[in-house]
Amino acid sequence: MRIDVLTLFPEMFAGVFGSSILGKAHDKGIVSLNTLNFRDFANNKHNTVDDMPYGGGGGMVLKAEPIFGAVEHVLERQRRAEDGEEARKPRVILMCPQGRPFTQEIARELSEESHLIFICGHYEGYDERIREHLVTDELSVGDYVLTGGELPAMVVTDAVVRLLPGVLGNEQSAVTDSFSDGLLEYPHYTRPAEFRGWKVPDALLSGHHAEIEKWRRRQSLERTLARRPELLDRAELTKEERIWLDSLHAQRENSAEN
Amino acid sequence: MRIDVLTLFPEMFAGVFGSSILGKAHDKGIVSLNTLNFRDFANNKHNTVDDMPYGGGGGMVLKAEPIFGAVEHVLERQRRAEDGEEARKPRVILMCPQGRPFTQEIARELSEESHLIFICGHYEGYDERIREHLVTDELSVGDYVLTGGELPAMVVTDAVVRLLPGVLGNEQSAVTDSFSDGLLEYPHYTRPAEFRGWKVPDALLSGHHAEIEKWRRRQSLERTLARRPELLDRAELTKEERIWLDSLHAQRENSAEN
Repeated sequence: MRIDVLTLFPEMFAGVFGSSILGKAHDKGIVSLNTLNFRDFANNKHNTVDDMPYGGGGGMVLKAEPIFGAVEHVLERQRRAEDGEEARKPRVILMCPQGRPFTQEIARELSEESHLIFICGHYEGYDERIREHLVTDELSVGDYVLTGGELPAMVVTDAVVRLLPGVLGNEQSAVTDSFSDGLLEYPHYTRPAEFRGWKVPDALLSGHHAEIEKWRRRQSLERTLARRPELLDRAELTKEERIWLDSLHAQRENSAEN
Repeated sequence: MRIDVLTLFPEMFAGVFGSSILGKAHDKGIVSLNTLNFRDFANNKHNTVDDMPYGGGGGMVLKAEPIFGAVEHVLERQRRAEDGEEARKPRVILMCPQGRPFTQEIARELSEESHLIFICGHYEGYDERIREHLVTDELSVGDYVLTGGELPAMVVTDAVVRLLPGVLGNEQSAVTDSFSDGLLEYPHYTRPAEFRGWKVPDALLSGHHAEIEKWRRRQSLERTLARRPELLDRAELTKEERIWLDSLHAQRENSAEN
């Protein structure tokens, strides 16, 4: 997979793209991570990439030209590298609060692509013609306001790259799987068995595999009920688990009333 | 404000904490951004910070000792720096998928604090005693799986720091305000008025302030209806706007059926 990030702040990416899992995936040749400063594609003498909005109002707006220029430069280079071979069209992804909320499902979908291009604005708006005629996807990582699209592009890159074959070892993949049943994870404990007087629950020390599994499943259900009950609607539960959760829920409602 | 990030990968933070708005806020003395490697607080000869989970299963679990040690080191240093003065207790924030979903409201709440400590795990789970006896908050930036808590800690830091007085200029603050009515932003356009044959809408070129405002508000409503209809439930709308949206919604339902 190839990833190109268009940004005014390429220096933000070196530490994140060079360390840990992303750095290793790049070094192994599984993904090629690149940044490009779209200021280099400004076609005016002051290299400005933004301008005042038509219709007035505060804030600046990113101009269409440098973004179109940078994306087309990446596409043209790719076409030459592939030497005329039929290649899938890259996804051109705009990071913005108006985008589709990013989810694990979208991460999986993007991990099937061979080329992603991210466009990161920085506190300005984007000229609408970029959305209408250049990008294939608009994504938002959450309902909060950030100073730019750089951190969101890193978040999406991280979520996607860790899904590529060969990136995670088996041990780490196992941790992932615990998310895939749609519930929050059960509590983990490791040595020492007693730390400052706080002990590991007996069930985990019992050595009885079935008892441990039962304890973990119940903890997972309880935690999801307490923290993110809306996730239970889509989770795969047995009939017994639904009944148990209903009684637990009723108990809590009762004790809240008294 | 002081922010301390506990991580095994401090090198990931230099580019993000040193650039753009965060770098400027640090240079102006508005926020002090620090990283600390909690491996330095491992109390065993191999400096291991994780271990196998009690009860078995894949994945490793971050041990309690190094995390308690690192947080207590930060607290103790802070106490000495304040020289006995009464200070508010810092928020100790665990970044994890089981946490409370991070929102703009939480960003505002955290921006009132004087000291935040972030704990970033890396693909492992956390020993439950860290959650129970050390942290004050657990936060999640979204329902997707990342390789570690580092990017989430950067996201929360960015969202919080940009709210501190003096960090953003007036121009940038204005952009923010457009999110505060609970709707998605209207489309922006800047020069040129025609780009590759695609023109700026006439309403924005009209120079009539009231007409521009009306166009923008309708665009904002339409975009929110099309992309994030659930946001409309909490948005502040006039009665006329609700009626207009209902008819728009009915029209779309109709054309989808035919």
